[in-house]
Amino acid sequence: LRTAHPEHWMRAAAIRTLTLDAVAAANSGHSGMPMGMADVATVLFEKHLKFDPKAPHWPDRDRFILSAGHGSMLIYALLHLTGYEQATLQQLKDFRQWGARTAGHPEYGHLEGVETTTGPLGQGIANSVGFALAEEILRARYGKNVINHHTYVIAGDGCLMEGVSQEAIGLAGMQKLGHLIVFFDNNNITIDGTVDMADITDQSARFAASGWHVLEIDGHDPKAIDKAIVAAKAETGRPTMINCKTHIALGHAAQDTSKGHGALTNADQLQAAKEAYGWDYGPFEIPADVKSQWEAFGDRGAAARADWDARFAKLSKSKQDEFNRAFALDAPKKLSATIKAFKKQASEAGKKVATRASSESVLEVINPIMAETVGGSADLTGSNNTKTADLGVHTPDNREGRYIHYGIREHGMAAAMNGMVLHGGIRPYGGTFMCFTDYARGAMRLSALMKVPTVYVMTHDSIGLGEDGPTHQPVEHLAMLRATPNTNVFRPADSVEVAEAWELALTEKETPSVLALSRQGLPLVRTEHKTKNMSAQGAYVLADAEAGKRQAILMATGSEVSVAMEARAILEAEGIGTRVVSMPCWELFEQQDEKIRKRVLPGGPVRVAIEAGIRFGWDRWLFGERGKREKSGFVGMHDFGASAPAPELFEQFGITAEATAQKVRELLG
Amino acid sequence: LRTAHPEHWMRAAAIRTLTLDAVAAANSGHSGMPMGMADVATVLFEKHLKFDPKAPHWPDRDRFILSAGHGSMLIYALLHLTGYEQATLQQLKDFRQWGARTAGHPEYGHLEGVETTTGPLGQGIANSVGFALAEEILRARYGKNVINHHTYVIAGDGCLMEGVSQEAIGLAGMQKLGHLIVFFDNNNITIDGTVDMADITDQSARFAASGWHVLEIDGHDPKAIDKAIVAAKAETGRPTMINCKTHIALGHAAQDTSKGHGALTNADQLQAAKEAYGWDYGPFEIPADVKSQWEAFGDRGAAARADWDARFAKLSKSKQDEFNRAFALDAPKKLSATIKAFKKQASEAGKKVATRASSESVLEVINPIMAETVGGSADLTGSNNTKTADLGVHTPDNREGRYIHYGIREHGMAAAMNGMVLHGGIRPYGGTFMCFTDYARGAMRLSALMKVPTVYVMTHDSIGLGEDGPTHQPVEHLAMLRATPNTNVFRPADSVEVAEAWELALTEKETPSVLALSRQGLPLVRTEHKTKNMSAQGAYVLADAEAGKRQAILMATGSEVSVAMEARAILEAEGIGTRVVSMPCWELFEQQDEKIRKRVLPGGPVRVAIEAGIRFGWDRWLFGERGKREKSGFVGMHDFGASAPAPELFEQFGITAEATAQKVRELLG
Repeated sequence: LRTAHPEHWMRAAAIRTLTLDAVAAANSGHSGMPMGMADVATVLFEKHLKFDPKAPHWPDRDRFILSAGHGSMLIYALLHLTGYEQATLQQLKDFRQWGARTAGHPEYGHLEGVETTTGPLGQGIANSVGFALAEEILRARYGKNVINHHTYVIAGDGCLMEGVSQEAIGLAGMQKLGHLIVFFDNNNITIDGTVDMADITDQSARFAASGWHVLEIDGHDPKAIDKAIVAAKAETGRPTMINCKTHIALGHAAQDTSKGHGALTNADQLQAAKEAYGWDYGPFEIPADVKSQWEAFGDRGAAARADWDARFAKLSKSKQDEFNRAFALDAPKKLSATIKAFKKQASEAGKKVATRASSESVLEVINPIMAETVGGSADLTGSNNTKTADLGVHTPDNREGRYIHYGIREHGMAAAMNGMVLHGGIRPYGGTFMCFTDYARGAMRLSALMKVPTVYVMTHDSIGLGEDGPTHQPVEHLAMLRATPNTNVFRPADSVEVAEAWELALTEKETPSVLALSRQGLPLVRTEHKTKNMSAQGAYVLADAEAGKRQAILMATGSEVSVAMEARAILEAEGIGTRVVSMPCWELFEQQDEKIRKRVLPGGPVRVAIEAGIRFGWDRWLFGERGKREKSGFVGMHDFGASAPAPELFEQFGITAEATAQKVRELLG
Repeated sequence: LRTAHPEHWMRAAAIRTLTLDAVAAANSGHSGMPMGMADVATVLFEKHLKFDPKAPHWPDRDRFILSAGHGSMLIYALLHLTGYEQATLQQLKDFRQWGARTAGHPEYGHLEGVETTTGPLGQGIANSVGFALAEEILRARYGKNVINHHTYVIAGDGCLMEGVSQEAIGLAGMQKLGHLIVFFDNNNITIDGTVDMADITDQSARFAASGWHVLEIDGHDPKAIDKAIVAAKAETGRPTMINCKTHIALGHAAQDTSKGHGALTNADQLQAAKEAYGWDYGPFEIPADVKSQWEAFGDRGAAARADWDARFAKLSKSKQDEFNRAFALDAPKKLSATIKAFKKQASEAGKKVATRASSESVLEVINPIMAETVGGSADLTGSNNTKTADLGVHTPDNREGRYIHYGIREHGMAAAMNGMVLHGGIRPYGGTFMCFTDYARGAMRLSALMKVPTVYVMTHDSIGLGEDGPTHQPVEHLAMLRATPNTNVFRPADSVEVAEAWELALTEKETPSVLALSRQGLPLVRTEHKTKNMSAQGAYVLADAEAGKRQAILMATGSEVSVAMEARAILEAEGIGTRVVSMPCWELFEQQDEKIRKRVLPGGPVRVAIEAGIRFGWDRWLFGERGKREKSGFVGMHDFGASAPAPELFEQFGITAEATAQKVRELLG
């Protein structure tokens, strides 16, 4: 290969040697994958990838997703070689060091050109389905003169063994995502040894079974690589998987071994590999002719982008504005007034409604004014109440559809939603039962880490779902989500708080939101209309002591706010002045000034928290924030739930107004 | 079909009508699946399943796993019809009611004959791989006269869309589990509509791609069903998938619709369905001849079991004892002495060791004396330190092997481990990086809910893993796990605590354990040998104030215990009497008497907690337990981690002895 394609060989060798040098400098990292896939990446960037290093955020660029994120030096080398400003040689030298953009795994937001955070295996390929769906939706809306690009993915054996990959493959196959092209780095090596120690799957047959176009090539032959990419682009009716037979750590003593997967730092072996490549240069040294070839690939995109600018300018002003607004994640001006009107109407109507149903009503007024929303559910559309009349179902025959039937694929859904936000132009939300955040956790954590405002609509948020029983009843999930940094967990108490939560979720730019919604009907507690978004404060006084001195503060969220209100009525009737604090979002309350927090939770009165979940985390508000250990109590769950009608469960587990009132009486002594 | 096989038809109709009656009585549930799969289940129980309703725990019974757990009435009907004592008619009438054994989804431990808790889709099929692996391992050990049975699974479209199913399929295919037989309930219906709205996967081709034997049949034709099961049993070199084309809610007005998936409660339609079946009986009424046919299938097993008893009696006494001990989850008597000896040696050696490496050393002495342990890792064997010299790798050619290369399949591994414990005779443990508990959550929650003592070896438990960066650094995971009911989360500080944690994990019968272990080397803190298992108390005084009055208590876990000890040295040198409390397991400490807890955490001194995770949950110990808000502090993480060498991360995030000492000084004013 070296002699047949000498120029290609040296370009690929630049990736390989930068990888070896950076890993040696860091004394850690993963050398083998970039070395094995250098040929594929070189041909892709040379001949196919539509990109402009000078405009890394160009909306119509091709997306390049390194699902096998441990091979981060591959993408860092590519970005450096093609001339991305942030990808300096110094950054490569600082690989994996404090403050460097070149983190151990590619981190979204650290380095331009990195489209998504990868490392947790399978996430990249699952994100890519979202990228490709976003492209289809936007192409249908804005036309192919404005949106018409490909999503390229490199995935390894690890990505493909993770279950989430099957969810991605299944969804992409059904949606016939013809602009999605996955390179499978088929090197037959994992950390523990050869792949057959754990898997004998024929990956080509597996992808084909889900409706993919499959090609098999020698992943080191530049002609074969080029030919395959040409064929993949020509196939517009199906996603393509290119099965690339490769050698991990090509040219190194550790080639084709699991040792080659990790950090190859031995100086002699490094030198021997360089010699095998015919690479007679020092650490981090790239000969000028090789560098200029690479930069030429980078420069190629400038003209394409200029053409695009001209085409974009031909869109109507209003289309341009909508496009730019959506890509900037700015909410439409109308949103605020729409939410206020909804709240007013809800307060006036005063109906008992399940918050999942309130959520649907809110979406009915939001979706028509926010073209960028894309809804969906993991096969619980009717239960999650995520579909509104105007969305249209997204299918290969209806690319304008804004509602996605994700199938029974919570993890794949979450990862695809992340991909859609990252693509730009889309604000996705998707639903499942709250208990199945367990299945989606891998991707939900990445929403938080990447700072993308994905919205999770998690219904059936407590034992209030009743008969389906403990497998479906979240008890620890609120705590788990609240424990996750940069995640706003909303548990609205009624239709008004639901509307407020949606407003906050859809104006957020850097934080994912979880809406925990009830299956069961909840009475309206916000009976007095306020234009202000009270939930934005995180916690606020819903009703204050009236019967005299404030002796108790009841704190509650979601379905238990009305329980607190009932308890308050009991206590006030007994002359015990009682405040009810609704706490729809702890995270937002924590961000408030001490002064505001103190106004809501002053020291003195006894405090009881009521939530149909476990206590874990509540001590922050019971004991902390001017609270007192001896004067605090909790009404909620202490273990898993049970299968029975919901009202009976609340009785049996003692989550009632009377139990709350009794707790207050005991604390008051 | 009704006329061709009249007796079979009536037997199957018994399942269908019991389902309709129970769902109508509960006014909730899922009717369609049991009605669709009644024929398959009838033939399986009639002609093939090896079971004895009088001995539901018979170790050599066939296992029947209803992965599509929402169809719980199928298994409840089967258990009732065949004569399981606990499955009374009254239980069917109390379906989904408080206190009934017949929960909304089948709950392990509620009703004999339910082998595993299902409902969260995909879990059953993933458990079943563990069941089948356990059977292979025990057959190799005890011989086929003692262990020789099949694992039968019913899985639906939902199970097969969940990613975890791919992990199960891949692992089972590679392991060539010839005694595993999966029926795919191919009814083309999900909650949102027809399957093709979300998936076009050819499931037969997909299973075949992973090395399965695949058959396709009409799932209502008893002859075809029987023939397929015969063929599946004859194929001993591969697992079999029987693709059963079925009609959901067969015979009901809702047949073949997604409405049929849910609760069919309409009285007229119910009556019409019964008429279509030729079923002229009232609610919950089973004609005597049909019931007696079913009971005869149940009785069939008694003879087989008596034969088995005789064969088992031929095992040597020591083999019998070992077998019975393992199935009872009793630890060997030697365990305690072995752990004590290890601790003594570790205290004397005083070496700095990563706790993941200590864990390997402990396993090196445990595995040889506990034949029931089966280790494994999700492709991180060398990093998780889970493999010991004596285990042998389990492969189709080495069924005695006790180490499983699970592949990059955290969720599948966790679910398979649950299956192994549930099968009996095995104590599994498996490793991955702690951060990827995110991937395994779905199954880890079920360990806790089912009360099975699966052991999770979670290494790389903090920013201490260094350069791999925030995608690999757990910060919220300790809180998430601690928030989960019935889960013991151990974070041992050194080799001695690691040994104690293993002893506790391996003597536990009803609680899963998580061992959070460090990547980095940790100094020995338990320098003085104590035979008592100090970790069993959950938290204990590691070092007390010596410099004078006890002014500070430092609480820490794992890698931060040595930080606390260093901080103590600084403070004591300044005359500030300082106690260090090691808290390897919060859950066990919470179970202690108030008196013991008070002895460890008396009121008075300032308290600082040190843990390289987020604060969430710590307020319980800082503010609660005689603590004071104004006199407490936390040294730990406040957000996600970063990519850099570990020592630099601890400095940058301020998790140091000096920062801890400074916090104490500030609190003391």
